[in-house]
Amino acid sequence: MKSTIRRSRVTYAMTFTLCALLLGGRCAHAQADPLPSWNDGPAKQAIIKFVQTTTDQSNPKFVPPAARIATFDQDGTLWVEKPMYTQVVYCLERVPAVVKAKPELAKVEPFKTVLSGNREAMAKLSEKDLVKILAATLTGMSVDDFKAEAKKWLDSEKDPRWKRTNTELTYLPMQEVLKYLRANGYKTYIVTGGGQDFVRVYSDAVYGIPPEQVVGTVGATKYGYDKAGKPFLLKEPKLLLNDNLAGKPEGIHMMIGRRPYAAFGNSIGDQQMLEYTKAGDGERLAMLVLHDDANREYAYGPAQGLPNSKVGTFTQALYDEAKKNGWVVISMKDDWKRIFSFEP
Amino acid sequence: MKSTIRRSRVTYAMTFTLCALLLGGRCAHAQADPLPSWNDGPAKQAIIKFVQTTTDQSNPKFVPPAARIATFDQDGTLWVEKPMYTQVVYCLERVPAVVKAKPELAKVEPFKTVLSGNREAMAKLSEKDLVKILAATLTGMSVDDFKAEAKKWLDSEKDPRWKRTNTELTYLPMQEVLKYLRANGYKTYIVTGGGQDFVRVYSDAVYGIPPEQVVGTVGATKYGYDKAGKPFLLKEPKLLLNDNLAGKPEGIHMMIGRRPYAAFGNSIGDQQMLEYTKAGDGERLAMLVLHDDANREYAYGPAQGLPNSKVGTFTQALYDEAKKNGWVVISMKDDWKRIFSFEP
Repeated sequence: MKSTIRRSRVTYAMTFTLCALLLGGRCAHAQADPLPSWNDGPAKQAIIKFVQTTTDQSNPKFVPPAARIATFDQDGTLWVEKPMYTQVVYCLERVPAVVKAKPELAKVEPFKTVLSGNREAMAKLSEKDLVKILAATLTGMSVDDFKAEAKKWLDSEKDPRWKRTNTELTYLPMQEVLKYLRANGYKTYIVTGGGQDFVRVYSDAVYGIPPEQVVGTVGATKYGYDKAGKPFLLKEPKLLLNDNLAGKPEGIHMMIGRRPYAAFGNSIGDQQMLEYTKAGDGERLAMLVLHDDANREYAYGPAQGLPNSKVGTFTQALYDEAKKNGWVVISMKDDWKRIFSFEP
Repeated sequence: MKSTIRRSRVTYAMTFTLCALLLGGRCAHAQADPLPSWNDGPAKQAIIKFVQTTTDQSNPKFVPPAARIATFDQDGTLWVEKPMYTQVVYCLERVPAVVKAKPELAKVEPFKTVLSGNREAMAKLSEKDLVKILAATLTGMSVDDFKAEAKKWLDSEKDPRWKRTNTELTYLPMQEVLKYLRANGYKTYIVTGGGQDFVRVYSDAVYGIPPEQVVGTVGATKYGYDKAGKPFLLKEPKLLLNDNLAGKPEGIHMMIGRRPYAAFGNSIGDQQMLEYTKAGDGERLAMLVLHDDANREYAYGPAQGLPNSKVGTFTQALYDEAKKNGWVVISMKDDWKRIFSFEP
């Protein structure tokens, strides 16, 4: 299955390259609608205009292929982030296994609350408590063991509303944007507040984005040897990069070393990435997904008139900032014809 | 000039792809010698065997294109590292400018010694002193200013022996290996103890390696705004990754997230990268450049019978380790027909 997908992607890219060579780059215009799940409107037009402008050699804003970088936040931008970030669910569900290995944690907060299964109490855990849970559940094992563990969970865990694995809950319109940009020579990156190692487990299968193009929150690893003398990397509870807010442009510089030409987000955690992208010269695209469709997905942020200041939310202030700076707001309700590939 | 180089690279890659499709991957064998600057011998044979094995679909050790990662140390592996690392020369030469901005440093060590111009005294500076100089000369400016400054210096600075810019002193045989691997679908990375931002300034022009494929020693940056409100990244004197020794596999995991299939180094600073590479399953290639040619380049390390334990040196212990683990030692004297492209 996977190899079929890959092959068709390669063939498409080759056909495009040949076509572009023969027709001098003009064949993209003759192709079918690259964004069929989008309604016609300012958001769709902004994406198409951006691609046409930056890939047209006769345009002064032409961008050489090697410099074509596009960055995407993940939670809430590429896939569903409610009722809780997938990775947080993963960490909470891993607590019993961690406590089994270290029984002394059973009587210590926040582990006691998590073990109680009381969802209301869990929802009230502080950010400091969450960091303790993340450190306990994501570190102290080799990167290979972590990968195997996370993959197993991701393959089986079901979202409570759609009864599908989290990896199925990606937004079809955004998948089309990823493919459209790649078909036009853009290298697509995920730039997420989520754990870099966690997102890398599925980024290729879910988005066609290889591990080396995932920038996330990074914990240190420590090189060592197992009993047989075989080297391995141990995941350590030491934070190297918090890839949120200002950490996003900092992470982009560290991991990519180039300023993106296009950036997509959905919350105040993405604001600095969008600012940094737009501050570059030439044509730059900054877009924000607004969750304003309670029927088909969720409605939160200014769509509900509920401004607040937590990372992961779309505040009124962010909305105003977007309008002021020419960032394009994507309304799920108005701009997206379809949201999920499994829906008609 | 640059665009011509790029175009020919693209055309070559496309021709290869088409040819491989038509002939089922067998056309590489019919091509001219991909490593003309290498003498026939075990080192050259090891490289060719590795590429043939891992790109042959009928071989059980075939590696899918997306997983083809090769990592290269830079100083002493891709270019000359004597009499001093290029970046250390850069930092020492920047000291007067730093002292001009902060005159109080003139009377403080190690800056006082550097300003004296006494080369013997400078050669005796401790590693701690060097770290102070690196921090003072590489940080406290925006990443854009740093890039412009470093580029200017690199374009003008001449090596004392060859009277050429440092960027001309790359090893032709290694340039051939980079191209040969890329033509066979490998993504080539630099994994250097040098500063990531510094090496990124020239990696594309010198090696055809884009900034996002340079892993180096990483300092933190801090996102902020200039007086006009424009965002920028400030280089901070805070170390995030020391990309030497165990830091190399740790950096590879952080930046790439995959284990390399081939790794090239020349000193004990590369030992863990080679171990980590060889610990993967299937066919893996680990190679060490031995500097044993005082006439055409330099001779140091076990070639001189001078084992020692500083990073950047090829010790007797490393040589023994290589022999024990099946790492291939490249003798500059015996394996390289030509060393520099500017020599006949």
